[in-house]
Amino acid sequence: MLKEIQGGVCAAKGFTANGVHCGIRKNKTKRDLALIYSEAEASAAAVYTQNLVKGAPLTVTKNNIADGKARAVICNSGNANTCNANGIEIAEQTCALLADALNINAKDVVVASTGVIGQPLDITPIAKGIPALVAGLGAHSDLACEGIMTTDTQPKEIAFEFTVGGKTCRIGGIAKGSGMIHPNMATMLVFVTTDCAVSSQMLAKALSADVKDSFNMISIDGDTSTNDMVSVLANGLAGNTKIDSEGADFDAFCAALNAVTTYLCRKIAADGEGATKLLECKVTGAKDEATAKTVAKSVICSSLVKAAMFGADANWGRILCAIGYAGADVDVQKVDVAFRSVKGEIPVCKSGAGIEFSEEIAKEILLEKEIEILVSLGDGEGKATAWGCDLTYDYVKINGDYRT
Amino acid sequence: MLKEIQGGVCAAKGFTANGVHCGIRKNKTKRDLALIYSEAEASAAAVYTQNLVKGAPLTVTKNNIADGKARAVICNSGNANTCNANGIEIAEQTCALLADALNINAKDVVVASTGVIGQPLDITPIAKGIPALVAGLGAHSDLACEGIMTTDTQPKEIAFEFTVGGKTCRIGGIAKGSGMIHPNMATMLVFVTTDCAVSSQMLAKALSADVKDSFNMISIDGDTSTNDMVSVLANGLAGNTKIDSEGADFDAFCAALNAVTTYLCRKIAADGEGATKLLECKVTGAKDEATAKTVAKSVICSSLVKAAMFGADANWGRILCAIGYAGADVDVQKVDVAFRSVKGEIPVCKSGAGIEFSEEIAKEILLEKEIEILVSLGDGEGKATAWGCDLTYDYVKINGDYRT
Repeated sequence: MLKEIQGGVCAAKGFTANGVHCGIRKNKTKRDLALIYSEAEASAAAVYTQNLVKGAPLTVTKNNIADGKARAVICNSGNANTCNANGIEIAEQTCALLADALNINAKDVVVASTGVIGQPLDITPIAKGIPALVAGLGAHSDLACEGIMTTDTQPKEIAFEFTVGGKTCRIGGIAKGSGMIHPNMATMLVFVTTDCAVSSQMLAKALSADVKDSFNMISIDGDTSTNDMVSVLANGLAGNTKIDSEGADFDAFCAALNAVTTYLCRKIAADGEGATKLLECKVTGAKDEATAKTVAKSVICSSLVKAAMFGADANWGRILCAIGYAGADVDVQKVDVAFRSVKGEIPVCKSGAGIEFSEEIAKEILLEKEIEILVSLGDGEGKATAWGCDLTYDYVKINGDYRT
Repeated sequence: MLKEIQGGVCAAKGFTANGVHCGIRKNKTKRDLALIYSEAEASAAAVYTQNLVKGAPLTVTKNNIADGKARAVICNSGNANTCNANGIEIAEQTCALLADALNINAKDVVVASTGVIGQPLDITPIAKGIPALVAGLGAHSDLACEGIMTTDTQPKEIAFEFTVGGKTCRIGGIAKGSGMIHPNMATMLVFVTTDCAVSSQMLAKALSADVKDSFNMISIDGDTSTNDMVSVLANGLAGNTKIDSEGADFDAFCAALNAVTTYLCRKIAADGEGATKLLECKVTGAKDEATAKTVAKSVICSSLVKAAMFGADANWGRILCAIGYAGADVDVQKVDVAFRSVKGEIPVCKSGAGIEFSEEIAKEILLEKEIEILVSLGDGEGKATAWGCDLTYDYVKINGDYRT
């Protein structure tokens, strides 16, 4: 049903994008301002960080899309507009300048910002950069993706084709996120575009449900950013009958959205600051889904598990330990643990106690780039997956002198 | 009132100790079995990890001191007796063997264990080691302290003299703990001895109250161990009238206990795995104490704050971020932040927004070994202190190949 296609956020009809270097960053080779534009009015929905310290752009965006409509997304990197006395003013100025250049309403702009917190954001480079940003709009999802990156080492971009009511629709997304990642409700910066016709109410419903299983299940370092945001714009140019209630069409849309978000989740986790490996903790047999999520998240967040995975050390006792302090209702006497990668699968713990296993085979499995930690709780049908990465020297290096 | 003295757990009258290498560890220069012995019956109290995965020795100890009495503490390092099918049996055998050698009741033994989780603990080296362990009992707090260390780089030992009802009493403690430290209710391994006469009920009361402000306020890495335990033995040989209710005597005892525990907390945090610095987060102006604790703990647990402190980077935005996701009721517009060390104090954030400050002076302050992060919430009288350490390359190194 779903087919992966090229084009990122420009795969869907009527969406163009661009990214430029406007001067927020000193490094002139690094784009620091990104734009996504829809030629038609789009339904808009977003979810935001639950950190009490919120970036000013989130407040402005929430206000702007209260009517469920948007036309454009603008985002700068290099300096987060957070904990600044004039933050709201700068975010609103950004929207106004962009709206002028695009000849749209300033209230139809989604604005976002990422980078160091607490340094005032100067409007000058943004104002100077907007004309070139707008003039260069095209099928440049890759440039927009580059413009939102901070410590990311890889762009995170994906698109799929799917069918709703006999009409071919497209959905694509870009994301940034590498550190300060432990989303709660919303997460990082993720911008999704689709030409599927969906009411803003159903779009919001689809997104809220989706993030619970996708972005809220990633953790890089346990720190929930002040600037997390996931937004979706749906401009309806695919020509399907507008989705305004639950049913087969809504399910098809949700499946496509989930394909985009799950892909981006895995990319974000694998590109965690300093990471050498993607960790996927798959919990099954929980008494319910909430329990499975709590356990999966606890394992993926454990510094000791993460460091062991970096060392390809099958130290499963640390996994039991993380399950034990998760705060979930688990019978530790029933827990089984195994490791899996492309090299194979190896059980290491049965019924809460160690079993004999080959350290050599375990090592070979754990030396791979993508590791699954399989936890079976033996207590029901609940299951969940959480994504994370290993803890490495480079995480410390990156964060020991981020500002210098 | 309180006077620091020598002697650790042997400072109090009637307590002797020892530590030997019995063979659990391959490295013969590292002691791996420790003993503390009271010549008189002692009131005993302990608090334990809240991890659902609990080391078998904790279960046995809880059962043994249910009557509020104990005579001896035995602890091995190198291999935690946790997640082993025969764990209870091994822990009970250990108590029985020791009781035989000391001619005491096996139910009067506090037993503990630390090291790798999930590898069966062989009773053979323990059985072989006990005769020498008992034969060598003396004023050897230092040897016992060495016998409980794992990745600790420094022994953690302290003693004080204090007065209760005109009688001079002594209290001393040893501790181990460097990784998997994020206590909840109880923590790490801490053994305290005193010759003050205290009923077991009042001893339990004093200890439970104390850990809330001491060990529960440390975090090295957010991982709550399966083997955490703090125990206190009080043998009454100081000759004071037994403390069996609240009042001036109880307060004097609690103050002495707190002097021991606070000292050990700071030592444990400063010796966190790979740590180069002690971090103390002091929160004031909270609406209540619980809020202050939640905020202080969140700051001290943030990987990003910890990495910034390693880099001596005054990146206060990460502190605001950690306050914002703490889950506490805080008005972020009222938050002030400053850094302090022996080199001076520098305010970096006022009313939730950045202020101008000298990066050079901040750097000089943050290059010290003991850093205070001062957070003022401007919202009431609640205050709390939490202890932690920086996140360094060596933390990753130590935990990337702990078992090899």
